This record gives sequence, C-alpha cells and structure tokens, in this order.
Amino acid sequence: MDFEEKTIKRQEIFDGHIFKVAVDDIQLPNGLGQAKRELIFHRGAVAVLAVTPERKLLIVKQYRKAIEAISYEIPAGKLEIGEADSALEAAARELEEETAYSGDLRLIHEFYTAIGFCNEKIKLYLATDLKRVANPRPQDADEVIELLELSYQECMDLVAQGKLVDAKTIIALQYYALHFGGDL
Amino acid sequence: MDFEEKTIKRQEIFDGHIFKVAVDDIQLPNGLGQAKRELIFHRGAVAVLAVTPERKLLIVKQYRKAIEAISYEIPAGKLEIGEADSALEAAARELEEETAYSGDLRLIHEFYTAIGFCNEKIKLYLATDLKRVANPRPQDADEVIELLELSYQECMDLVAQGKLVDAKTIIALQYYALHFGGDL
Repeated sequence: MDFEEKTIKRQEIFDGHIFKVAVDDIQLPNGLGQAKRELIFHRGAVAVLAVTPERKLLIVKQYRKAIEAISYEIPAGKLEIGEADSALEAAARELEEETAYSGDLRLIHEFYTAIGFCNEKIKLYLATDLKRVANPRPQDADEVIELLELSYQECMDLVAQGKLVDAKTIIALQYYALHFGGDL
Repeated sequence: MDFEEKTIKRQEIFDGHIFKVAVDDIQLPNGLGQAKRELIFHRGAVAVLAVTPERKLLIVKQYRKAIEAISYEIPAGKLEIGEADSALEAAARELEEETAYSGDLRLIHEFYTAIGFCNEKIKLYLATDLKRVANPRPQDADEVIELLELSYQECMDLVAQGKLVDAKTIIALQYYALHFGGDL
C-alpha cells in the first residue's frame, strides 16, 4: 500500500512571524483522486522540564491569547531563525529567560504537537542541577509571566482543576511520574 | 499582576475547513503597550487509546502532509460542526471508522495541542472491552490508513526509531505505562 500524498499545487495564504499557512491540492495514493490539505508551517520549539534540588518543578503562569485564558506550562519558546541545529542552546536560553536558572540539559522527547495540520516540532529537555543565574537574560518584552516552583502533586492539582491543559506540560509531568516516581 | 491580553483589532486571514487564521492587535497588561498575536482557531478533536483484550494497542499508520512523512498514531479525528458537546460520540465514531471496533470509552485527558498560537483541544479517551463492529462506518474518503495492533513495547520501539512522533500518542503511551504498567 502506498501512502504518500504528492503536492499538485500549493497556495500560500499567510507568511507571519510565528507560522506560515498554505493550502495544498494533493494527489491521493492508490488512484483515490485528489484532496486538499490546509497546512501550518512553524520553525519548531523547545520546552524544559526543570527540576530544582528541592524537587520542585518550574512552571510558568501566563496568558494564552489563543484560548483567552491563563495557562500553567513548563518553560518553552520558539526556535529563532537558523536555530534548528542548536535546539539545546535555545532550551538553555528559554530556561534562563523565563526562570533565571541554568542547568544540565538532556533531550527526553521529540514530538509534533498538531501533526494533522501543523509541522511544529517540540524538543523537550530535562534540566537538573539547576543553578541561579546572576544576571539572567531578560524576558521577551511582549510576555507577562510569573514563575512558580510547584511540587508534582501541586501540578496534578492544577490538572484536576482544569488549569493545566497544555499538551507539552502533560508529557513532561507524565515523564516525571514515570522516571522519578510521582512524589520522588 | 494582571495577565489578560485584550483584543484591540482582529484581522481575519483565512477561513478554511480545518482551521481559521487571525492576527490580533492586543493590549498588553500592566501598561506594557501593544503587541500582535497570530492565531489558529480549530473546532477541537478526539483521540482514543484503545486496548484490545490481548492487550495490544490500536495504532493507525498514515501519511501526514504537514510533515511529509508516514506517522503512527492512536485513532483520532476532528469534531464535526456542532459536535463540541458530544465528544464521546465523536470518539466512538472515529474508533469505529478507523479500527472497526467499538468499546467502553472513558475520558482520561484534555489538553491544548499548541497553546502558544492554536486553540485546538483534544479530548483523549481510553477504550477497553473492545468488540468488532460487524458493519463499521466507512473511513473518510480522503484518508489512506492501515490499522496495526501493537504491544506497548512495539510502540516504544517506534518511538526509539523516530517513527512515532505524535504528541497525543505519546501522552496515551505514557498514560498506559503509568496506569496499566509498561507491559500490563
């Protein structure tokens, strides 16, 4: 069985700072005719499950315009242009900007967030041996965030309350439970 | 500290079958000035972690145009118009269409897939007591899929090989490992 969907024609809809939008006319495999695919192209992102020496998890509280609500998430950020090969550096930068910590970083998961229509790939790092950075890089000027240090159980309480609803953060929490034990 | 980002002006960019695109001019809180937010609006989706009586996991192999690659994922599908209140029915439908099974469905997670710019919310169900459907609803005409029944370890091998790279499926596999034990 053949699976590939060949592009016949691409219509470029939008070229933004965060993502691009296109609509492809595609040829379905196995003589099934044509179809359309609406697509979002994104440079990719990094996220960091950061565990303090006291075994608290660093969680960022921030407003998310797409859902018009406050969200609780692990530190994360988009790759800059040309940064695809240095995701580790991007993860260290986002950790420092959002938390004023540095740490030992190790890649633990890579995944596409919304694979049905979007190519955003997140590289998720574990950060341990955290140390305060004396003069951290400043946060992005258009971000208002609050840093929290929460126990695993406090994070799970936010999940139960419907306040922690972010897929990458749920992957990080489940990773923590699987690899460190729920209460470590 | 205030977090809310109020919309000053919304520019609607694209109104598709799968998602809408808008760019908002927003007022940052705390007198920080204005910024832009690029946004994707999506009706939401359902996904199903389906476990057979032989303790295999139902995995769908399919081509994903956004990443130009074959992907291995749990069964999933978009909500239809007006279906937001009946996600359970949507999950049962997608399970039947993609696998020809029905089962007992229970909600186990809800999350936003790409919360930084997109409001797609996935409701993830666990399906057990699976039974073959005699005359299942047909698959979507524009989908070419192959159904696999894999052990947890076979799924983890696909993760290690970089072939299983879908966030919702990783959440489902972690859930399986946490709640049923890695080898159940």
